[in-house]
Amino acid sequence: MTSPKIKVSIVGITGFTGTELLRVLLQHPDIEITGLISRQHENTKLGDLFPRLSHHQDLKITNEPAAQVAEKSDVVFLCLPHMASQNIVPEMLGKTRIIDLSADFRLKSQDDFKTYYHEDHTCPEHLDGTFVYGLPELYRDKIRSADYVANPGCFALLAQIMLWPFQGQIEQADWVGVSGTSGGGKKARDPAEHPALSQNMKSYLVNNHRHIPEILQSCQIAKSQLNFMPSVGPFLRGIFATSFIKSPVSLETLRQSYSHEPFVRRKDTVEMSHVVSTNFLDISYSAGENDTVIAQAALDNLMKGASGNAVQNMNLMFGIEEDKGLYFDTAIYP
Amino acid sequence: MTSPKIKVSIVGITGFTGTELLRVLLQHPDIEITGLISRQHENTKLGDLFPRLSHHQDLKITNEPAAQVAEKSDVVFLCLPHMASQNIVPEMLGKTRIIDLSADFRLKSQDDFKTYYHEDHTCPEHLDGTFVYGLPELYRDKIRSADYVANPGCFALLAQIMLWPFQGQIEQADWVGVSGTSGGGKKARDPAEHPALSQNMKSYLVNNHRHIPEILQSCQIAKSQLNFMPSVGPFLRGIFATSFIKSPVSLETLRQSYSHEPFVRRKDTVEMSHVVSTNFLDISYSAGENDTVIAQAALDNLMKGASGNAVQNMNLMFGIEEDKGLYFDTAIYP
Amino acid sequence: MTSPKIKVSIVGITGFTGTELLRVLLQHPDIEITGLISRQHENTKLGDLFPRLSHHQDLKITNEPAAQVAEKSDVVFLCLPHMASQNIVPEMLGKTRIIDLSADFRLKSQDDFKTYYHEDHTCPEHLDGTFVYGLPELYRDKIRSADYVANPGCFALLAQIMLWPFQGQIEQADWVGVSGTSGGGKKARDPAEHPALSQNMKSYLVNNHRHIPEILQSCQIAKSQLNFMPSVGPFLRGIFATSFIKSPVSLETLRQSYSHEPFVRRKDTVEMSHVVSTNFLDISYSAGENDTVIAQAALDNLMKGASGNAVQNMNLMFGIEEDKGLYFDTAIYP
Amino acid sequence: MTSPKIKVSIVGITGFTGTELLRVLLQHPDIEITGLISRQHENTKLGDLFPRLSHHQDLKITNEPAAQVAEKSDVVFLCLPHMASQNIVPEMLGKTRIIDLSADFRLKSQDDFKTYYHEDHTCPEHLDGTFVYGLPELYRDKIRSADYVANPGCFALLAQIMLWPFQGQIEQADWVGVSGTSGGGKKARDPAEHPALSQNMKSYLVNNHRHIPEILQSCQIAKSQLNFMPSVGPFLRGIFATSFIKSPVSLETLRQSYSHEPFVRRKDTVEMSHVVSTNFLDISYSAGENDTVIAQAALDNLMKGASGNAVQNMNLMFGIEEDKGLYFDTAIYP
Repeated sequence: MTSPKIKVSIVGITGFTGTELLRVLLQHPDIEITGLISRQHENTKLGDLFPRLSHHQDLKITNEPAAQVAEKSDVVFLCLPHMASQNIVPEMLGKTRIIDLSADFRLKSQDDFKTYYHEDHTCPEHLDGTFVYGLPELYRDKIRSADYVANPGCFALLAQIMLWPFQGQIEQADWVGVSGTSGGGKKARDPAEHPALSQNMKSYLVNNHRHIPEILQSCQIAKSQLNFMPSVGPFLRGIFATSFIKSPVSLETLRQSYSHEPFVRRKDTVEMSHVVSTNFLDISYSAGENDTVIAQAALDNLMKGASGNAVQNMNLMFGIEEDKGLYFDTAIYP
Repeated sequence: MTSPKIKVSIVGITGFTGTELLRVLLQHPDIEITGLISRQHENTKLGDLFPRLSHHQDLKITNEPAAQVAEKSDVVFLCLPHMASQNIVPEMLGKTRIIDLSADFRLKSQDDFKTYYHEDHTCPEHLDGTFVYGLPELYRDKIRSADYVANPGCFALLAQIMLWPFQGQIEQADWVGVSGTSGGGKKARDPAEHPALSQNMKSYLVNNHRHIPEILQSCQIAKSQLNFMPSVGPFLRGIFATSFIKSPVSLETLRQSYSHEPFVRRKDTVEMSHVVSTNFLDISYSAGENDTVIAQAALDNLMKGASGNAVQNMNLMFGIEEDKGLYFDTAIYP
Repeated sequence: MTSPKIKVSIVGITGFTGTELLRVLLQHPDIEITGLISRQHENTKLGDLFPRLSHHQDLKITNEPAAQVAEKSDVVFLCLPHMASQNIVPEMLGKTRIIDLSADFRLKSQDDFKTYYHEDHTCPEHLDGTFVYGLPELYRDKIRSADYVANPGCFALLAQIMLWPFQGQIEQADWVGVSGTSGGGKKARDPAEHPALSQNMKSYLVNNHRHIPEILQSCQIAKSQLNFMPSVGPFLRGIFATSFIKSPVSLETLRQSYSHEPFVRRKDTVEMSHVVSTNFLDISYSAGENDTVIAQAALDNLMKGASGNAVQNMNLMFGIEEDKGLYFDTAIYP
Repeated sequence: MTSPKIKVSIVGITGFTGTELLRVLLQHPDIEITGLISRQHENTKLGDLFPRLSHHQDLKITNEPAAQVAEKSDVVFLCLPHMASQNIVPEMLGKTRIIDLSADFRLKSQDDFKTYYHEDHTCPEHLDGTFVYGLPELYRDKIRSADYVANPGCFALLAQIMLWPFQGQIEQADWVGVSGTSGGGKKARDPAEHPALSQNMKSYLVNNHRHIPEILQSCQIAKSQLNFMPSVGPFLRGIFATSFIKSPVSLETLRQSYSHEPFVRRKDTVEMSHVVSTNFLDISYSAGENDTVIAQAALDNLMKGASGNAVQNMNLMFGIEEDKGLYFDTAIYP
């Protein structure tokens, strides 16, 4: 006898994380899609909005009220911009499980939220305690028993995986990450973005990126010890990061980390194309000059950096094998 | 009770079609990998050769003799260059089913083979009759009962799908196809291929490409009626093709074609990114000026243009649902 | 004794053709920049608007009235959207020479303008006669004595060069051109344009593109004889075009064309990277099947397709060597 | 009265630095090409070898003996692999000026050469003293009076410009540079390089790259103080580098550096596309956390990183304006 399928809804289906999540879930054997919610595209067939998905002829986008979506779903994924999630979460609490891909419930401190997002959180009472931070490699047990999970930011997830094995014994960490252009989401930017980015590289929000407080919260490192350089490169998907870390922790210790993780692969060298379109995160630690550890790591910003990790969280929350529906090999590099 | 799994071997695992085939098969629920054969990489762990596949820790590459591979397999995929397949096929016939991704058994005529491949076929007795041409949309029933299938060339498959609905009523067809650089396979080319191709487009082998005789063989069109312009563009995967066709066949007729195909999607307009990394082929027919039909179509050259189509053939040969293990949505465009 | 320099102004400096024109002119030995005009960016230093041009410390953007700009300039380049040029041209006529890069004075027929641009031309009295169509290879002598020149559209220029040598003896021409993404200009499009285009190809405005009437006007071909497929590919600059042409004109005749042109190079095969960032247009004619001529050609859409050609026009109008300041070799492919 | 033109020969015309050098020199008003030397392509017309340069109809490739080339030239550029330059330099000394773009005369120490290039230098007597290291921003006066100049490596040049203003007061410098694929030169690499690199990033030769000893030689920093991560990204041209530097030198001091340099632009933020295809190097210094200075810089690896810088050296050696023939604006980003 097979178990009944998990009823899943996605709120905010039109952004990159929403459609990527749908792509993954449609290949997950244990779930059924119960709702695809979008305020702007109510009553649109999925294939009309996304012609590449036109073969899913039965799927339709609706705009049901949050409470109603919650009531009919075993789990709701929120793929919304920050501020939008916190507006509907209170209506859903107690009615369903929630995996929030926005930034709204990642931070425990109301002040941190204000500092980095420049707005007042509308339900600060849920900032510390209601949601578990959804980084399976660090907080697996908590996620297993959680009803509400806040999925990490893509840069933040990658940096935490790199810094966590130092167990707080970090004097200084300098970090450069280069993201593909899908990392910017689907918001209006340069009116000629392809020409502007296609043979370009640049950094932005140096030491001021919104993913920084997530890292500080987990990795026992102070802001004054971290230089954090988010950058963008001329490719579609993926993040490739390098970090120089001053720490007494030995390479031996570092190289024992993540040895039983299904989606973290320890490598001697890291290539971004090895993880693009998969849920894997590849990582290497090596000895640099002057007692500095050099860490490099890569992931797909939309998979392990967002929607793939969110499904990994779902699997944990529902007691399914953690890698179910997620064992993709790369579909980019042949 | 579940059926026993299909025992699958891949001969020639290191080329693009071989590894892409492995990627697809590893996610196919009904098969088990019985052999991964490579002459050059005997006794290598898969992950040592392809670091991006290092999580498949149990898979090892061997160099078993062809007959032995055949005997232990329900089906053998040959992912070899032309001339190499015909060298081992005779040792395998009668011992297993074969899906040959090389060009060796696509043509029925020994002379055509000589004309386009500039070598004498070594087992011409198997050219006409032993192998079924593996284009499911045209020859589904024959494939269902075939033991030996010759998988089409990528350009040839795309062009045949575009021209077939004209049912031989073509005065002239002019065709331009632009392929990603993975279409060239893994052979030595320009010593600085990335700089040479990354902001480039060019055509090659105009009216002289090896995929032409496959098209002529299926589509009742003479060489003198077809202008065939293979081109290469600055992207990794995919083929985007445009054809101008002089024919009395009506648009209504054309637009009824492929309506029940699992992997051919008729569209009003075609975008290549909608099919990249999937087994779909998107196609449009529209009325041009001067009684010309304009057809456009796109596929992923390594999926529907090679390894995905080969798995579709396998599914047909073994009586499995035709789309099993093949229902991927694109993992490129988010 | 050296001649005084030509006083040049550019109206509309912030779009792609404006900045590209400035790039070319800054390396032209016979000119001096007299005015850089932009409504939106008045009183901005050039380097503040375009950090990559910050070394031109003396250049400043102003918003002088059109008549005033005309009076102080020997020639004014208009790099404006259509409709904007026709609004200021009347104020400038008689006061300076004009090279208009917009579409406003390319067509002779008011009706054609309305049909393709969906607006009424505001000074139709200047449509036929005031401006010379600025395609040097076709209309060199007229340009030499012109005061007002309308610079062609990029696709239109390329297609005309391809079709002109047939001298009106065309039964049918089918044309596919693939442009880089800079061809779209700097207007708001997809909010995530880089991800949307970077592994993509698609056609648009099939048989309905605004450059079609320019071709019809020059090449003695009727709309009903031309299939015109503008497409976009995943690269920054360049257009690569293929045309199938039914015509009794012999290859010998075709291959004698353009033999004395400074910027048209007849080739056996065409590669787009050979012309990107230059003012060259490479072109090949070959014999296809079924008495069809296959023409291929490539140019840089911003150089020979726009601003480089505009400078070529300026050189002709001022009696300078036609290639002065334009003899760049490609700065893309090393 | 105009001065006679400088007679220039290029030995090794077929590699990337050779053809790029030719591209620049052909637009330099003060020189004439006296010899284009290639062992493999003797008696070939330039345009036959490089179709994109076919308009230079008068240029022919020869294979004259080194001494003869030297005697007829005012300056010889050597665009050869390492070991090849040192084989012919002794025959040329005393007969002409030399600008060597290979690595053969960059290092002063025979041992360093052996350590990093794994071969014995064949004329070590010329390692220390014969050649001046051709980095104009650091050694302008020496270059002015030099007959023999060793042009720096691309990564090395960029890193030295970044570190030099610290005047040796560096505790530790950690450096990551991402190069376009043209940085690898025209040697055989991956047989399918475009697919392998086009959506990829990776580092290589970490703390072991051949450009390291050049940096140590100039910047008063020990190997044990420098972590040096060369990386490759999915683009054609350019290097984008980030460095974290522990030093007591103040930002004020750093920001006064390079203020009179013609080709170094100090910026608040650096974008690679602003320098691609130009001879500019853009650089920024900012205050990081924990008393760390963050430096970012970008250049075009074939221009300021190789052939453009070599022409800048030539200008200095011949007493011409330093920026003559080099004032290109970017021809990539429109």
